Amino acid sequence: MGGDVGPSVMVEGAALARRRDRDLRFDLYGDEDRIAAELRKYDRLAAVSTIHRCDGVIEGHTKPSQAIRKSKGTSMGEAVRAVKDGRAHAAVSGGNTGALMAIAKLALRTMEGIDRPALSALLPTVRDDDLVMLDLGANTECDAQNLVQFAVMGAAYARTVMDNQRPRVRLLNIGTEELKGTEELKDAAQLLREADYLPFHFEGFTEGDKLARGDVDVVVTDGFSGNIALKTAEGTARFVTDLLRSAFKSSLRSRMGFLISKPAMRLLKVHLDPNNHNGAVFLGLNGIVVKSHGGASAKGVANAIGVAGSMVRNDITKKIADDLETFRSHTLDKLNEAAK
Amino acid sequence: MGGDVGPSVMVEGAALARRRDRDLRFDLYGDEDRIAAELRKYDRLAAVSTIHRCDGVIEGHTKPSQAIRKSKGTSMGEAVRAVKDGRAHAAVSGGNTGALMAIAKLALRTMEGIDRPALSALLPTVRDDDLVMLDLGANTECDAQNLVQFAVMGAAYARTVMDNQRPRVRLLNIGTEELKGTEELKDAAQLLREADYLPFHFEGFTEGDKLARGDVDVVVTDGFSGNIALKTAEGTARFVTDLLRSAFKSSLRSRMGFLISKPAMRLLKVHLDPNNHNGAVFLGLNGIVVKSHGGASAKGVANAIGVAGSMVRNDITKKIADDLETFRSHTLDKLNEAAK
Repeated sequence: MGGDVGPSVMVEGAALARRRDRDLRFDLYGDEDRIAAELRKYDRLAAVSTIHRCDGVIEGHTKPSQAIRKSKGTSMGEAVRAVKDGRAHAAVSGGNTGALMAIAKLALRTMEGIDRPALSALLPTVRDDDLVMLDLGANTECDAQNLVQFAVMGAAYARTVMDNQRPRVRLLNIGTEELKGTEELKDAAQLLREADYLPFHFEGFTEGDKLARGDVDVVVTDGFSGNIALKTAEGTARFVTDLLRSAFKSSLRSRMGFLISKPAMRLLKVHLDPNNHNGAVFLGLNGIVVKSHGGASAKGVANAIGVAGSMVRNDITKKIADDLETFRSHTLDKLNEAAK
Repeated sequence: MGGDVGPSVMVEGAALARRRDRDLRFDLYGDEDRIAAELRKYDRLAAVSTIHRCDGVIEGHTKPSQAIRKSKGTSMGEAVRAVKDGRAHAAVSGGNTGALMAIAKLALRTMEGIDRPALSALLPTVRDDDLVMLDLGANTECDAQNLVQFAVMGAAYARTVMDNQRPRVRLLNIGTEELKGTEELKDAAQLLREADYLPFHFEGFTEGDKLARGDVDVVVTDGFSGNIALKTAEGTARFVTDLLRSAFKSSLRSRMGFLISKPAMRLLKVHLDPNNHNGAVFLGLNGIVVKSHGGASAKGVANAIGVAGSMVRNDITKKIADDLETFRSHTLDKLNEAAK
């Protein structure tokens, strides 16, 4: 039921995802009639889908605390519950992010060793590979331990979706020198520098202007700065393309130039299209939940479903648990060493 | 001496600024021979300039604490001292930002009623008017009082450079609802909502994706988020224009389109050129200090000098002092009211 449009885009997205990945099966939660009507358009999808009627819906303006109280019987609540009960491998929703986070956190609980789950997404870069960034808004304030856990989770996510077995990880800061930034950042950097046995390269700090350069795979930050950075990047990309559009309209000559260079402009559009990077994931829960952007197209929804599929296949929850266990045992060893 | 190039660009910038504003006079601090050689190219500038020989220079890698210790006799240190001693109305430097901030803070001291000075700059928007944003990195962590003081200073700056006598002010946050964000932000919002007698409109929160929309004049944030937002905006603008450039090069046809639409592209370039927004100011000190970007062109330097001139003419220090006094007396009145 989620997203700005509802069942039509979600079902079309599922059909597209299914065409890309024949192993997928779907449980669709929400208004039975509307979903059934959409499903009739896609025979192959219908053959592997089950509709679960839900009369309730979590609205876009519902506060997380309210969402938790009334989640039972809603499409969002029931989809997450299916993951909790082991009836589904992952839940994908296009609905209210705060509500989804709250419902998922309560139902699935955070993994052992994780104090707070984080919201992570892929950002485009000038290279072929995207950038994994977290936290994007789940935790307004974070301590050094939270940031270290985010680094472990982000690296596991990068290994899952990027086919990169030793991703490069950096902390977002306001300078790259060791003395820059908050105490939390300096402490987290120290912990990560020492944890060189973990399956990623920690390469220190990075800054906001270097996010799109493609020379780092995972950028870790608190949810406040992450959200500011993500939205500022979105806003600026829109700002520049808007300027471009009005520049092209500024004279007859420019309009002609635009028509001729249209194929090039299309390339640019594809690269910047948020649908190609759709699918924000909640990391650190005992179960996989993916948030599709409310305004995503069917292609965007299919990408979010693809992200969920890849996380299931690569057993990301186990990857994170293993890395956390390694971190814990090394830290314990060191404490024992120090106690001798 | 500051900036990546040194005297040649700084002196050319001064000459350009002088052509725009005939009232300007200059004291030029640094290597006497090099400055004199440059000055020979600009007769009219030379007639209103005095060279002050300084043998020392604050390098780009010098830490703020070191810079303070060795500031005496350096071009940066002496330029700031001239402001302190009343021999100059404002100092403009293209050098090390952290060092300049530290030297300026120590020499000029913060104004009464200001706990911490802030770094502020102008950002481009889709409208004709720029956006005043602060703090951009001087203070990593800020409390509600700091943010309120930044709002007062930013609004005074907007009234000075923007010809807008009642600027719209917002706090940068991760959502626009009243309940979003840190306690500091919520407290600052409450204080600003109550301070409706101040010469600006406080309009609540804004988000990173709305910075370039031009529907707000002043955006206030802590130095960490501000620095992240500013640099992310710069990085994303460069990323999109790089994509655009490679899109144009992707085929013969696109190259032709590019040639035809070149005038339009030039418009875009002008709008995004950081030189047109050059001149970051340290607000909250007993004296005017403007930081020109290290990589600024002569036009950029002239803009930074223009910013300094406009701050002097509009007596920004008095504007800020008056507004702070109004805020203080209202707050006192309310406390007295409450005590009755």
